[in-house]
Amino acid sequence: MGNVITTPAEFFERHGGTLEQAVAAIRGRHFWTPYPESPSPKVYGAEAAEQGRAAFEAHLDRDFPLDGPGRDERVVTERSPYGVELGVGYPHAGADALISAASKALPSWRDAGVRARTGVCLEILHRLNARSFEMAHAVQHTTGQAFVMAFQAGGPQAQDRGLEAVAYAYDMITHYAETVRWEKPQRKGGPLVMDKRFAVAPRGLALVIGCATFPTWNSYPGLFASLVTGNPVIVKPHPRAVLPLAITVAVAREVLAEAGLDPDTVLLAAERPEERLAADLATRPEVRVIDFTGSTAFGNWLEANATQAFVNTEKAGVNPVVIDSTDAYAGMLGNLAFSLSLYSGQMCTTPQNLFVPSGGIATDEGVKSPAAFAADLAAAVERLLADPARAVGILGAIASDEILARLENAGSLGETVLAPRPVAHPDFEKATVRTPAIVRVDAGRDDVFGREHFGPVSFVVATDDTDHALRLVRSTVGESGALTASVHSTDERVLDAARRTALEAGVNLSENLTGQVFVNQSAAFSDYHGTGANPAATASLTDPAFVAGRFSFVQSRRPV
Amino acid sequence: MGNVITTPAEFFERHGGTLEQAVAAIRGRHFWTPYPESPSPKVYGAEAAEQGRAAFEAHLDRDFPLDGPGRDERVVTERSPYGVELGVGYPHAGADALISAASKALPSWRDAGVRARTGVCLEILHRLNARSFEMAHAVQHTTGQAFVMAFQAGGPQAQDRGLEAVAYAYDMITHYAETVRWEKPQRKGGPLVMDKRFAVAPRGLALVIGCATFPTWNSYPGLFASLVTGNPVIVKPHPRAVLPLAITVAVAREVLAEAGLDPDTVLLAAERPEERLAADLATRPEVRVIDFTGSTAFGNWLEANATQAFVNTEKAGVNPVVIDSTDAYAGMLGNLAFSLSLYSGQMCTTPQNLFVPSGGIATDEGVKSPAAFAADLAAAVERLLADPARAVGILGAIASDEILARLENAGSLGETVLAPRPVAHPDFEKATVRTPAIVRVDAGRDDVFGREHFGPVSFVVATDDTDHALRLVRSTVGESGALTASVHSTDERVLDAARRTALEAGVNLSENLTGQVFVNQSAAFSDYHGTGANPAATASLTDPAFVAGRFSFVQSRRPV
Repeated sequence: MGNVITTPAEFFERHGGTLEQAVAAIRGRHFWTPYPESPSPKVYGAEAAEQGRAAFEAHLDRDFPLDGPGRDERVVTERSPYGVELGVGYPHAGADALISAASKALPSWRDAGVRARTGVCLEILHRLNARSFEMAHAVQHTTGQAFVMAFQAGGPQAQDRGLEAVAYAYDMITHYAETVRWEKPQRKGGPLVMDKRFAVAPRGLALVIGCATFPTWNSYPGLFASLVTGNPVIVKPHPRAVLPLAITVAVAREVLAEAGLDPDTVLLAAERPEERLAADLATRPEVRVIDFTGSTAFGNWLEANATQAFVNTEKAGVNPVVIDSTDAYAGMLGNLAFSLSLYSGQMCTTPQNLFVPSGGIATDEGVKSPAAFAADLAAAVERLLADPARAVGILGAIASDEILARLENAGSLGETVLAPRPVAHPDFEKATVRTPAIVRVDAGRDDVFGREHFGPVSFVVATDDTDHALRLVRSTVGESGALTASVHSTDERVLDAARRTALEAGVNLSENLTGQVFVNQSAAFSDYHGTGANPAATASLTDPAFVAGRFSFVQSRRPV
Repeated sequence: MGNVITTPAEFFERHGGTLEQAVAAIRGRHFWTPYPESPSPKVYGAEAAEQGRAAFEAHLDRDFPLDGPGRDERVVTERSPYGVELGVGYPHAGADALISAASKALPSWRDAGVRARTGVCLEILHRLNARSFEMAHAVQHTTGQAFVMAFQAGGPQAQDRGLEAVAYAYDMITHYAETVRWEKPQRKGGPLVMDKRFAVAPRGLALVIGCATFPTWNSYPGLFASLVTGNPVIVKPHPRAVLPLAITVAVAREVLAEAGLDPDTVLLAAERPEERLAADLATRPEVRVIDFTGSTAFGNWLEANATQAFVNTEKAGVNPVVIDSTDAYAGMLGNLAFSLSLYSGQMCTTPQNLFVPSGGIATDEGVKSPAAFAADLAAAVERLLADPARAVGILGAIASDEILARLENAGSLGETVLAPRPVAHPDFEKATVRTPAIVRVDAGRDDVFGREHFGPVSFVVATDDTDHALRLVRSTVGESGALTASVHSTDERVLDAARRTALEAGVNLSENLTGQVFVNQSAAFSDYHGTGANPAATASLTDPAFVAGRFSFVQSRRPV
């Protein structure tokens, strides 16, 4: 395992201030981040951008440097949505070899204790932060995100979410005494005295199943929550987005080895296409924790079949926007246009259904009928994306053929308000870039808007009135789930009703977003991502339930 | 709902000091209790015992005074193990009526907020404490526990466990800010400012399924954890032990009504024999939390079938004792004899398998072979139970015909070390009282000792050595579960190995108990009951996971 360079205790000591502030932030839920989201040379240094690019390019058409199970076989599965073949070869191991290696790592990782595990995790995050530019290219060329978004969401903001999970797990475990001398007074004679210890027993092996669109952001909470609570983690990336998680696993293994711990505490499970390695791993008795982001079908399959495990899924949803009235019509349109365009709507948080009362909405620019609102929204999107250079910076590239097909078919679902068009990328001529589609459908067509259309497809739905819209929010979210909801109204009673509807539907609500905060974005330490209270996800990032299911306290007691 | 006499805020204020100390105790895990366990007139007042008896007797052969669903139909199902027909008639409602009433109560209970819910729960516990003598008779004459035990375990200690759950839920919810003004600095211009609120959304309706042996102690944690987190609770008692939970539900409804809240927030679901009301309720989509104590078969059924719910089960296990060596042979025997005799072994925490090395154990009275140890243990039990008046105070009565049959059949399982004998009860001539059975079996007979024999049946198993015993602990607990484990050794290395085995098997360990602390007993606020880490139980009373799965945070945010 190499020579010990730094003990876990030293890592813990080194990052103690960060941990303390992170714990304060999850409790207080105020703004805080240790990982600057700006890719500016003033923040990350003059050389960082170029070094990161070079580090990324050095991975291409090579075997990725990673030891552990599967070294002798390689899989190559990635092609950039910008048109570049990545050609990176990853080790490939079967479920047996992965489970055997992770099982062997469990006792030493468990016995290291919560402070050592936390120190190791904090150092992993610190080193990932230093590699944010390399990660940005890796995320861009696997997911299709534009570079700046790939930097932010794939780098610092993902690291924030990982740190948030570390803080939750550390705070929860250390909230309760590790040892106590217990003294029970007796009516006669001295007290009964016992010494008690409370050890953290991890649930078992953990499996993180990554997605193709946010390989790091959606994986880090489960990865780090499982690690701090003592569970070795097998990271199974989506075959189209392996590199970001391979870098992550490599960093984790490097830190573990330096700390004298077993690197097999974190393993990469790259798979051949159609191998269904995730399903195989997920039903093994040793695998007791699963964090999954991806399709509703496989998420539901995991919930039904991986009954031996604590299963956290984030699947899909039909995110609603209720538009009742506004005193900032232009700001609202601009905000919505950006939300629908950002990363071509390929976010689980992108709004899908925009409910507008048939009688129109009162605005600071007069009453707007559903047709007028739809036309104005289409125009706002077109304005936002008029300049191709700016457009590709917002849209990124279409991540898969399925999404492209869905977009191209959107016009058949109703009356086209905004037809998608291709945008030429100035740097990548083979990139698949499209503007979003907006479609009008009747409120009766919940067979259309009641199911998810992942990607840049949204619907303007005329309702009888705002109450009707809220009822549709309740029914569609209750049936198909949602990661986000939003409302625009100048009427406090409507906002109250929307809040109650959101609470009953179990979905987080954003109200009157007309500026630079967007419903698709959630801030670590303050905003919950999902709730676990509707069909879109069984878990929220990151709340007490997300962490508590990963460990038990096992006690021993002895008379003194 | 009657006039409001006391607001929930007043209840919260009144019991604030108790709550604060309870929260400090669950964190520090030191000894603490607000509910004295001694049924002494000095503690509860000179009249309390007589008033409690009278209150109990007033219930007999009457309709129990409880309004709510099912008033018009009555079920009578209880007969005391001491030979008395109780004849109490309880309201009977079907699943539809219960779910409808509880669902109607949900919004007001949720919207009351965590402080109001906590205040109401603290007042319920306070009033239950005042009725501890009445409860003691109710528990004695449903479970067969002896009076003092019924007082302690059914009264103050059960109230402690309920308060512990209140403290966990309140502490977890209030650990995170309820509102925040979030300010994110921008590179240019003023910060982005948002006001955020985080509401507690209960998971849904909760179902508590009580058992026949500890109707209050095992039900209060789930009941109170669900209530504080906002879930209305349907309490389904075991048909043989309804009265203790009927009293509990009546007290809860009385407090709810006084506070101006919907009494249907807590409902009694008494059932006809063989009705399978629990199975019906448990699979309803509205029921999202289940707390169950009872048989392995039904617990496993719930885990497999109530997939819509957060399911906490406490089933059965094969609690091991590893005997390696001791410097207090007489104390060890006395302690074990009491543990095997207490409530006729009808506790999920009673030891079943006593592993002794074939080469004998070193003691302060010389080396003892397995045969000698078994004989000495049998003699210690006989000594403890020699006096009938003292014996019935420890043994209580046999709670069911199944347990009696199991006891009578014990001799066929191996070589009888101690044969059970009847004990005449001085007060209740029809009481079924028996001394325990101890049987010797070979280490190869894990077909016998590897499964649970609930009741006063235990096995002395000779092993190759203590390592062999620890391997058997690992395998039997891994397969059949355990709520407790214990070890006796004078060798720190053996104690370390036992602690590691217990950690890996996921069972709480008691070491060298030779005095007045018994492995069957766990102290609220300090000892965990179960771990959730072996097949005996999916939950621990009370840990973060027991509480966290009962609610979600649902947020709303708005720009300032």
